[in-house]
Amino acid sequence: MTRQELVNHIRAKASYLCVGLDTDLSKIPAHLRDQPDAIFAFNKAIIDATKDFCVSYKVNTAFYEALGVKGWEALEQTVHYIPSSHFKIADAKRGDIGNTSAQYAKAFFETMPFDAVTVAPYMGEDSVRPFLEYENKWTIVLGLTSNQGAADFEMRKLLPDGGQAQPLHLYEEVVRSVARWGTTDNLMFVVGATQADAFVNIRSILPDHFLLVPGVGAQGGSLQEISEKAMNKDCGLLVNVSRAITFASGGEDFASTAAVVAAQYRDAMKAYLAKL
Amino acid sequence: MTRQELVNHIRAKASYLCVGLDTDLSKIPAHLRDQPDAIFAFNKAIIDATKDFCVSYKVNTAFYEALGVKGWEALEQTVHYIPSSHFKIADAKRGDIGNTSAQYAKAFFETMPFDAVTVAPYMGEDSVRPFLEYENKWTIVLGLTSNQGAADFEMRKLLPDGGQAQPLHLYEEVVRSVARWGTTDNLMFVVGATQADAFVNIRSILPDHFLLVPGVGAQGGSLQEISEKAMNKDCGLLVNVSRAITFASGGEDFASTAAVVAAQYRDAMKAYLAKL
Repeated sequence: MTRQELVNHIRAKASYLCVGLDTDLSKIPAHLRDQPDAIFAFNKAIIDATKDFCVSYKVNTAFYEALGVKGWEALEQTVHYIPSSHFKIADAKRGDIGNTSAQYAKAFFETMPFDAVTVAPYMGEDSVRPFLEYENKWTIVLGLTSNQGAADFEMRKLLPDGGQAQPLHLYEEVVRSVARWGTTDNLMFVVGATQADAFVNIRSILPDHFLLVPGVGAQGGSLQEISEKAMNKDCGLLVNVSRAITFASGGEDFASTAAVVAAQYRDAMKAYLAKL
Repeated sequence: MTRQELVNHIRAKASYLCVGLDTDLSKIPAHLRDQPDAIFAFNKAIIDATKDFCVSYKVNTAFYEALGVKGWEALEQTVHYIPSSHFKIADAKRGDIGNTSAQYAKAFFETMPFDAVTVAPYMGEDSVRPFLEYENKWTIVLGLTSNQGAADFEMRKLLPDGGQAQPLHLYEEVVRSVARWGTTDNLMFVVGATQADAFVNIRSILPDHFLLVPGVGAQGGSLQEISEKAMNKDCGLLVNVSRAITFASGGEDFASTAAVVAAQYRDAMKAYLAKL
């Protein structure tokens, strides 16, 4: 999917919601759990119920891998079921030496039809490049994550290396460096919604990039705060909500309840987009 | 596998060789490529041929994921085929927020019987902890990797945060911090063989840990240099060789040729171990 197509979908739906399919077999409703294709049945119902209110789905690969071959089958079924109008993200946090990253890129961009994959930056440029070589595909690199552990390394300050007056945090150096390896048409960054203090700073470094924002919902980030601080002229945000939508009800009404919650997020987003 | 068991296997075989199963379908011999289970057939022959010369196998998940469900089936077949005497590493470079890392740990330690999984440290402590919670399983965290991109972030210097006289490289801070989260019985670090200059330094920070060392063979690292610089009283090294063994011959003699090359590595290792 191109950037313009993504922006058009956001405008048409007045939504920048991404629904996260972190489908945990132990949390899906009891009446589905014993079906042979329980994970896909759950995802299918969630996608049918929420697709009018979101522009993207993010599939968290860990929950599928935990189930082995059956899980990987559900992952493939799910990505094929997501409508082509929706931006399909593999939240896989991959990254390795070049020849290995090329295989991960193949897995998510050729073997499966994802539009984007999340990538960890620790190993540097040659670990990210193979993902960037695919036309109309997106690499979403970890910038500043939503978890407590972000303080351990991401928030550490680097010794200035000459040009800068101020020491940069590692995450700032990561987003500055990685931004040079791609373009605003093939590169996004993960910035956790719980990092509201850093959003203005990140937006000043990356005025035009899209940001994938997890951490709203179960993790406690504020949709209002990040929308006000970090929206750009193309919106520039994909805000992910997983458990707060998919597990809003644990009963037989899980899909209709998910639709209600997704619609609430869309309504809030519509109001923030109207201020653009 | 416990540390003592691993050390016993190393002593009994006079080998600290890990054979890397980065099985690329496009590189396996032509007579196998069209078999329905080509990847597993190749791995099985390599394991049969090399198991007397190595103590560990490292399966690079990217090459299996690139083939979709069939690849994941081959991954599961392979890990089940590796003898229980061998230390089984999933080279997966995973890492995410706690509830997601817990799913990755489940995938590799419960759904599949790996002894160890490689983990990326960028997201900090809560992204690593779930892997450490499994008894007799190992977490192998990226320290200083073998690729050029290691210079981009891993080798950057951090602003001293009080206690230290000298600024640390990010990789030094990573290994120092992560070492506090686990023990020498459940934690190893990846240090690339191409980083020979850093080995003495890393060994001074981590005198007792095992290091998983990729980068010998196709990537050009020297077995002699890292063995002389970084062996400890328990050996403390697992040196991985992938392509230089598995693709030593592209013909029908691929397995017997792999055995010859693996035996050469074992012979060299035997000599280095004798100097302990």
